[in-house]
Amino acid sequence: MYQAKINVTLRKSILDPQGKAVHHGLESQGLKSVTEVRIGKFIEMLIQTDNENDAKRITEEACKKLLANPVMEDYSYTIEKFPEGYEI
Amino acid sequence: MYQAKINVTLRKSILDPQGKAVHHGLESQGLKSVTEVRIGKFIEMLIQTDNENDAKRITEEACKKLLANPVMEDYSYTIEKFPEGYEI
Repeated sequence: MYQAKINVTLRKSILDPQGKAVHHGLESQGLKSVTEVRIGKFIEMLIQTDNENDAKRITEEACKKLLANPVMEDYSYTIEKFPEGYEI
Repeated sequence: MYQAKINVTLRKSILDPQGKAVHHGLESQGLKSVTEVRIGKFIEMLIQTDNENDAKRITEEACKKLLANPVMEDYSYTIEKFPEGYEI
């Protein structure tokens, strides 16, 4: 069993109104030294395989097919061994 | 300048319907070996300070006050030095 941890972020050139709203909220809370906020998705996935390369291939395919929009988003991930019989 | 990378995840005990929907979508795409999916938020923040401890304190405060709901969510973060004059 492997666990994939995937970060999906908006590309630099894409405006992030949700990040702007959170930035504004932080300023209202007195956190004035925060100068920029961008918000993306964090996805954890369990993959039933004993082969790390298989886990990578499946994660890559999941990102390309479903998790990230290639026009607007970038993704990065890490893969780690995960003990059998547990849940995330 | 420091950059904080924050992961906000739903607590184990909280149901994640968005994760279930994505899991189902991956199965429909033929990715049958994915056994669980959970979805959280990924937040990148730039902090105007030269002091790493300040950056940590500000990130912690932002998570507690605004970014994570302590009843339903956990958070973790990393802090890295970030070159002046750049944007994320």
